[in-house]
Amino acid sequence: MSKVTCHQSISIDGFSAGPNQSAENPIGEGGMQLHQWMFDTAAFMRMQGLAGGSEGADSDIVAELSANANVGAYIMGRNMFDAGRGPWDESWKGWWGEDPPYHAPTFVLTHHPRSPVPMQGGTTFYFVTDGIESAYRQAREAAGDKDVQVAGGANTIQQVIRAGLLDELYLHVTPIVLGRGERLLENIDHPKLTPVEVVASPAVTHIRYRIDR
Amino acid sequence: MSKVTCHQSISIDGFSAGPNQSAENPIGEGGMQLHQWMFDTAAFMRMQGLAGGSEGADSDIVAELSANANVGAYIMGRNMFDAGRGPWDESWKGWWGEDPPYHAPTFVLTHHPRSPVPMQGGTTFYFVTDGIESAYRQAREAAGDKDVQVAGGANTIQQVIRAGLLDELYLHVTPIVLGRGERLLENIDHPKLTPVEVVASPAVTHIRYRIDR
Repeated sequence: MSKVTCHQSISIDGFSAGPNQSAENPIGEGGMQLHQWMFDTAAFMRMQGLAGGSEGADSDIVAELSANANVGAYIMGRNMFDAGRGPWDESWKGWWGEDPPYHAPTFVLTHHPRSPVPMQGGTTFYFVTDGIESAYRQAREAAGDKDVQVAGGANTIQQVIRAGLLDELYLHVTPIVLGRGERLLENIDHPKLTPVEVVASPAVTHIRYRIDR
Repeated sequence: MSKVTCHQSISIDGFSAGPNQSAENPIGEGGMQLHQWMFDTAAFMRMQGLAGGSEGADSDIVAELSANANVGAYIMGRNMFDAGRGPWDESWKGWWGEDPPYHAPTFVLTHHPRSPVPMQGGTTFYFVTDGIESAYRQAREAAGDKDVQVAGGANTIQQVIRAGLLDELYLHVTPIVLGRGERLLENIDHPKLTPVEVVASPAVTHIRYRIDR
């Protein structure tokens, strides 16, 4: 049974990005700390073609999430794709270079129409202007028997949860206090969550929640 | 080495109490849900003289926390002791009846002086009007070689963290979305936290953080 999934690193005080997101600080001020647990793993270093990093539970999780073996399509918000707002600068093709790490159709929620942008490695960015339900239907169809993954950011994830579409929320709870920024779990009504898997390390606590639709 | 500890149930969105705390809803609207994991355990039922409840990791944790074997003194805020504000109604001796569950000197932070209130079972409430550092010193001395535990609520815990006095924060993260209420981890600057123990069940995720002073 294919699912709609999402995984996010959050601070212990509930932020998935720091304040003042910009081209210089795509995850906001201090936001990069949320991902430090990942950068420190051997799996992440190997993806960069480097030696070193720590093996163990966190590294195994990075390897599994990066392989994304069962993800057939992605949904993301415009603000995750682009620091710009308003009409498109069509020279911008995302943060990730010519071969983005998605390798699948990726549906970008936006108010501004744009033609699809095919990239190397199987990623094509499609731009959806008629809302989350439409993005979900298109992603669901594109994914076939595989899962749809909601890449972010917080506002898009909240829309998916409010629409009752998310089956699994996998949180990487980092022991960082950001104090301000973008909260992941606000404006989501009252979804019924059950923790179904917990993996702990000294760097981060991974909690996989099932959401009953 | 004796420590200053604190344990709290929080919602997945970071609240340790619901909104509109009152005599009818001491933990705020919906706040009681945060403690449901505890009420459902066999250890809690036994404390009420009842059979039933579930055995397992959660029950073991409730039994251990309730025994409080290594706690020599408590600190709590006025708002945890009393729904009233302003000058004391001296007929009020806390929510817990004649034999409160503390069984140790308990220092209540308040702006309003009051004589100590001895209760049954070893609990005496002392009222501290000169701030958190003073409450800490008095609790530290009363506790001897044992730990000082910060009982709550959120504002008092935040004061203790900001003062750099807390050594251990044990969170019981419940899969509840409250949406509003009193946030536990705000206004605490940037303490250095490390998760040192994680215990998981389908009802709640227990994460014990060490705080490096």
